[in-house]
This record gives sequence, C-alpha cells and structure tokens, in this order.
Amino acid sequence: MTRVIEVAELERVLPTLELMAPIEAGFAAYSRGEAIVPPVGELSFEDPPGDVHIKYGAIRKGGTYLVKIASGFYQNPQRGLPVSNGLMIAFDSQTGAPRAVLLDQGLLTRTRTAIAGAIAAKHLAPRKIDCIGIIGTGTQAHLQLQYLAGVLKCRRAMVLSRSAERARRYAQDLAAHQFEVGIAADVEQLFAACQLVVTTTPARSPVVPAEVVRPGTHITAVGADTPQKQELATGVLGKADIVVADSIAQCRERGEISHALRDKSLRAEDVRELGAVIDGRTPGRTRDDQISVADLTGVVVQDIQIASAVLERIAQNR
Amino acid sequence: MTRVIEVAELERVLPTLELMAPIEAGFAAYSRGEAIVPPVGELSFEDPPGDVHIKYGAIRKGGTYLVKIASGFYQNPQRGLPVSNGLMIAFDSQTGAPRAVLLDQGLLTRTRTAIAGAIAAKHLAPRKIDCIGIIGTGTQAHLQLQYLAGVLKCRRAMVLSRSAERARRYAQDLAAHQFEVGIAADVEQLFAACQLVVTTTPARSPVVPAEVVRPGTHITAVGADTPQKQELATGVLGKADIVVADSIAQCRERGEISHALRDKSLRAEDVRELGAVIDGRTPGRTRDDQISVADLTGVVVQDIQIASAVLERIAQNR
Repeated sequence: MTRVIEVAELERVLPTLELMAPIEAGFAAYSRGEAIVPPVGELSFEDPPGDVHIKYGAIRKGGTYLVKIASGFYQNPQRGLPVSNGLMIAFDSQTGAPRAVLLDQGLLTRTRTAIAGAIAAKHLAPRKIDCIGIIGTGTQAHLQLQYLAGVLKCRRAMVLSRSAERARRYAQDLAAHQFEVGIAADVEQLFAACQLVVTTTPARSPVVPAEVVRPGTHITAVGADTPQKQELATGVLGKADIVVADSIAQCRERGEISHALRDKSLRAEDVRELGAVIDGRTPGRTRDDQISVADLTGVVVQDIQIASAVLERIAQNR
Repeated sequence: MTRVIEVAELERVLPTLELMAPIEAGFAAYSRGEAIVPPVGELSFEDPPGDVHIKYGAIRKGGTYLVKIASGFYQNPQRGLPVSNGLMIAFDSQTGAPRAVLLDQGLLTRTRTAIAGAIAAKHLAPRKIDCIGIIGTGTQAHLQLQYLAGVLKCRRAMVLSRSAERARRYAQDLAAHQFEVGIAADVEQLFAACQLVVTTTPARSPVVPAEVVRPGTHITAVGADTPQKQELATGVLGKADIVVADSIAQCRERGEISHALRDKSLRAEDVRELGAVIDGRTPGRTRDDQISVADLTGVVVQDIQIASAVLERIAQNR
C-alpha cells in the first residue's frame, strides 16, 4: 500500500523534527561514497518558461530510494501560484514498491535547502557575525534567515533587492522572526556591513562582483541550480580561500563553481565537499579573515534524509 | 489538487480504451521531433538485484509532462511479489503542478509495451502468419500474444522456455485467449514454424542465433531495456533487411541495436525509427521475404499517451 501524504500533514510534522543532524549525516554519507546519486535529470519549457529537475538516488544502506521532481515556473505568480512545485516518492530499495508519495508542493525542497544554508554557515562562517546579508526577497530569502537563527546568535540582517517595495515587505516579514532587517542601497553596502551573505536569486548574470567581497566573509550561494544561472562573479570564487560544493560532481555541471571552473578562475582540485568538511576529513574555515564560499546546488541525499525523517515521524504518529 | 489513482481503477478503465491509435500518434510525434525525451535515468541495486528506470518527457503541444518510475527486482517472486512495479506522475507543463499520480504498479508500462509490440507487427510483419513464436513465459510473453490478437488473424502460437513446466502453463493460460499454443523443443524449431517471433526475456546473452532466422520473418525484441541485456545475436540484426528502433537515440545506448552497432554488425544509418515508419516517411517492410527486426526499449511518449488516455477517461467518468 502506497501512503499518500498531503502538504498539510507535512506542515504539521516539519516543526516537530530536528533536521540539521540527519541532513548533515546525508551530506557526510554522500562525501564518503555511500550514496548512489546519478546526474540530475532536467526538462525545460519555454512557453511559459519553466525548469524541472528530477533528482533521484539512495543511501546504500538506507533501504529507500527516492525520486524527487521539483519545478520552477517563473510566470506562476501572475496566475496567483507559487513559482515552485513538486513532489517526492520514497521506494523500498529491496522490492521497488513505492512506500509513500509526498505531495509536498516543494515544501520539503525549500526546507532542506534552507537547512543546508544553516549547515554551511555552521561549518564555514567566521565566528563573529554582526549582520547577515541576504540578496533576494523570495521564499529562500525568508527561509535561509529563519534557519540561520538556529545556528547563529546574530539577529541583525540587511537585504538587497531590485525592488524597494519587496525589500520593505521582506524586512517586515522577518521582523516577525525577531530579525532587525535594514535595506541595502547596493551590493557594496551589503558586503561592507555583513560577514555572512546568502544569495538567493535566479540571476543569470552575476549580482556579486569580486571587488566587494572583503576578508572575513562567508557567502552561501543557493540560487544557481542550472548551468545557466549564476549569482557570483567567477572572481569571487577565484579570490576565496575556501570553496565548498555540496556535491563536487554536480557543481562541475551547474551552479557558481561550474562557471568559475570554466573560465579558470578556480581549479577543480581547490574545491572541497561539504560532507567531507562536516566529517572533519577536509578542513573548513581555519581563520576568521578567510573568504569562504559554499555553492549549494541541492543533492538528493538531502531529500532522502528529510523525507525519511518525515515518514518515520508520521509512522510513529499513527 | 493532485488526483491519486489506484491500480484497481486503472484495471477498470483500461479495457474501455482504444490505445493503439494514441500510442502510434505518440511514436509519430516523437519521430517528427515534437517530443522532449531526455536520456533514461537509471538506478541499480545489487542486494537484492534490481534495476530502476526513470523515464520522463513531454509532447511539446500536449500540456503535460510525465515522469515514470519503473522497477524490476528479480528476487521479488521469492517474496510472493511481481518482479515489476512503478508509478507515473502527470504534471501540468504550464505550471509544474502535479495533476495525477497513477499508482499503476507497472500495469500501464506492461500494457503500453504490449501495444508497441502489436504496432510493430502491424507495420512490419509479413502478410501471412501461420504461427506466432514467443520466447519467454513471463508477463510480456502473455500480453504480447494477447495484444497481437488485435492486429493479426492468426491464433496459432509456439512458445520456447527453459522450463517445460512454465511452457505448459503458458500454453494453458493462452488457451483461455483462443490461442492454440505448441511448445518448441528449441529455437530452431520455433523459427522454422513461425513468421513472427517476439522475444520477451531478461537474457544477458543472446537466445536467438543468426542462423535460425529465415527470410520472411519479423522479430520484435522487447526484453532488452538496459545496456547489459541482449536477446538477439548481433548477426540477426546484421542479416536483417529492416531494423527499426522505437527510439534511435535510446537504442544507441541500450537494447539489441546497441550491441549490433558496437560490434559493427549494423551501421547506424541503417536503423529506421518506428514513428517514421508509422508516419510513412520511412518505408517498412516492402516484400514478404524480408527479415525485419523491431527493437523496443520503451519510450516515454508511450507512457504519456497511455496516461493521458486513462486520465481523460477517468475525468469523463466522474
């Protein structure tokens, strides 16, 4: 019997779960080679424009394989719909039987992406953070800051948006989460004030030039998940002391690192993997004045771990 | 709202549908370049052994994209479970919203594969068929013969199996479908009696040597859907007058044609595509004494078409 789980049930269950540890464990297992993670499948539509990612895989000893379909259709807001949608399916890796369909409408993807941002900050941010910078005002801009509250004491933030109205609304929204959010006039001002910056836009040309990034900064880039998207000038990665990919294999093909490798701002051997940093096999930040960049393209081990945690809790509740 | 459709409802609806025409139309659209069909995604497990295929795509003007997960876990029968399982999900290609989850347990895949066999026979078999040969006794061995009844008058068949017991049971089962089924002692006898042979095994080394195949024979090979599997000696394709792939792109990577291309028994330019034959842009069989081979690896356009037909009927019924 395949269990079908609606988003309302997921919304009830998620706040009851501690998800940092299982997702860290997922990254670590992946970096130890204990996961099967084939290349991301992709479908693109032009009219209206939409990207669909199909991520699938398994943690070898886990007993489950997962297929996740996540879409972004950029004109949805004109129809009163959110940009992102999707679902996950968990299968029994002994028999192929579908155990559960999680009709999460992208909720689990948004959540595990925000948690990955918190994990990156935990392992890579400098010790003293006066202000957190957020570029973009969409769902990830909201969630990243909310989940950072779990790993950082700092409650001061600064947002950068092309729209003054959206920036104002964002500052208001996050005030409800105990954040005091200022509005940056430009990217220079943001980087002058912030030691941790999260970029969350679907930009196709860089919004962060190399010049603005100062020693003692950590940047987490979560927006670029296709080969076309790019938020950071390749020079940012070129000048960084530490560049971390959630998946080196995946970041070769898509995201910030792919651009920097292509124009040789970055050498492949200088890219570290998040799971190895989590495991302590690869050093993360060793000095406060280093520049670090985490490029998060989203790895199916995150989906496997969040779905497994949710399904376990739902089974307990019944 | 995502509709979830259980296998029982699919079993009720399927017999009410005429599916040859929409699936032919799907192949034709694909061969005209009107479909988006990325490479097949794959997951393999070793303990217990299982293959998972993830097929996804869209017909450009269709309004739907489909993701299908189909698995084969070969030790399932020891647990009292069928080898194959899976499900399909139909999404709105304007918004990414999942319209329906079809919990078909592989039923739609099995059905569209059998229908593709009937389509291949319709376009490629010689006019006069005295006896239909079936190699293998599994689900496809059953379904292929049943669906051939829709396009051929012949009701005589011969089955070849490594197990006398399974062959006997197969003959019994198909008697219920008005087929008179003899049991072949060996592959020579089968090909001496039959002008149309369907191979349906998961063999990893050829079960049909080139010598046994006579002029005036059509072979449909449906078993080999991974790069490792192979039912026909490459010499069979080498001596054939007509070699047809359901998808040339896919057959380069997997199935009978991939083996024959690799050992140069076959030249890439001599492979025709089923949809182009259906459309009449490429000739099929032109003489009764030709040897023809159809290599069916399964294309997501078949899944799109069968799922769309089923969903349309279910919407009408409600």
